[in-house]
Amino acid sequence: MAVILITGGARSGKSKRAEMRTRAFPGQPVYVATAEALDSDMEARIAKHRARRGTDWIEREVPLDLVPALIATDGGGATLVDCLTLWLSNLMHAERDWEREVGELAAALPRLKSPVVFVTNEVGLGIVPDNALARSYRDAAGIMNQIIAEAADEVEFVVAGLPMKLK
Amino acid sequence: MAVILITGGARSGKSKRAEMRTRAFPGQPVYVATAEALDSDMEARIAKHRARRGTDWIEREVPLDLVPALIATDGGGATLVDCLTLWLSNLMHAERDWEREVGELAAALPRLKSPVVFVTNEVGLGIVPDNALARSYRDAAGIMNQIIAEAADEVEFVVAGLPMKLK
Amino acid sequence: MAVILITGGARSGKSKRAEMRTRAFPGQPVYVATAEALDSDMEARIAKHRARRGTDWIEREVPLDLVPALIATDGGGATLVDCLTLWLSNLMHAERDWEREVGELAAALPRLKSPVVFVTNEVGLGIVPDNALARSYRDAAGIMNQIIAEAADEVEFVVAGLPMKLK
Repeated sequence: MAVILITGGARSGKSKRAEMRTRAFPGQPVYVATAEALDSDMEARIAKHRARRGTDWIEREVPLDLVPALIATDGGGATLVDCLTLWLSNLMHAERDWEREVGELAAALPRLKSPVVFVTNEVGLGIVPDNALARSYRDAAGIMNQIIAEAADEVEFVVAGLPMKLK
Repeated sequence: MAVILITGGARSGKSKRAEMRTRAFPGQPVYVATAEALDSDMEARIAKHRARRGTDWIEREVPLDLVPALIATDGGGATLVDCLTLWLSNLMHAERDWEREVGELAAALPRLKSPVVFVTNEVGLGIVPDNALARSYRDAAGIMNQIIAEAADEVEFVVAGLPMKLK
Repeated sequence: MAVILITGGARSGKSKRAEMRTRAFPGQPVYVATAEALDSDMEARIAKHRARRGTDWIEREVPLDLVPALIATDGGGATLVDCLTLWLSNLMHAERDWEREVGELAAALPRLKSPVVFVTNEVGLGIVPDNALARSYRDAAGIMNQIIAEAADEVEFVVAGLPMKLK
């Protein structure tokens, strides 16, 4: 079992890096999208990601119930979860207890047999947002990233497509 | 004398890291909070930080006059200043000459006998803010961080709870 | 030929670092400013940068046509381009095809004889902006930075005036 966390800013090359790391493990890779194709912008972006990574992935759309999804696909190739920050946003939008669910995810990781590669975003390096909801989300994302980084075996911070090893 | 600067984004684990670095020095640690408990949100956050770091710290609330406070507690254990960006914001709000005061802080550091660990924030890695005040603050924070990093013996950049050594 | 990309946040010390790297090459350095002195704020900032770097630079103001400008000054000392994110903003404002122009810049680099040092900004590490134009710009800047980083021989990420080597 290996857990890898790939973090970075918007359009920093995180997903591409995470796809490469996932493919490096043996077996058919699994792609867990936390995004739902709710509008045409999102559909276009999802199609672009799919075109880049190729069609040989098992694909799952998992907006909320990440732990059961990881358990369901466990035992085969590595799973790429793209991305945790969108999952967090889905949890908050659905008024679920995100702190509990992030804790449950961290606790579930050591029990998985297949490698998991997570993509997440750094969102706390700008000015404090005016909007209270954005502030809560920013704080939650920072806390989640610390918890998953602590549970991970490897953590990379990607800037301009280039990874820095944090752990 | 050792001066350590710990920088990073919101909820990146900077304070926790800085507490660990401060405790590693001999003597009773000193906690200099630049925040004032002005509302219940802030009170709750201060209480949470205090619960984490333990009750064996000497505590000071220093929103503005940092150099005299560092001189006053000098000679004992290490001092943790959490955080410089809030101090800067307090100076700007009080219409003090922040550039002069940051320069005075940098100049005072080599004369201290006890180690000092500073926490600061990176706030310049997002989109340029619309608001002129936020832009000025962002610029000032970047300039202050460069000046204190230059004066420091060690600088760490914390992402997802994990430090990268910059100096 | 050497291509160096210096990235970082606002007021992180990127320009100062890039000036130092440019000066380390033999020959008279060339300064390509992508900013135009459109208002007094910008004029003041340009004057400040000029005072720091000294008067022994060949100076060019190039808001849009970067590739011809690099070819025109090629063959002498190193060229500093400060900065790519402003160039991108100028291209978008002029409704030019920025993706094509960034691709042309990357393709032109291996043909240059003189070293080039680029300054760029990381703008994608804050909260997703509300404003659609800011989101497009943020995405474009991330994509451009990946493309130029890929074409560069060296990439540095500057935080608090201190460089981290990415490539």
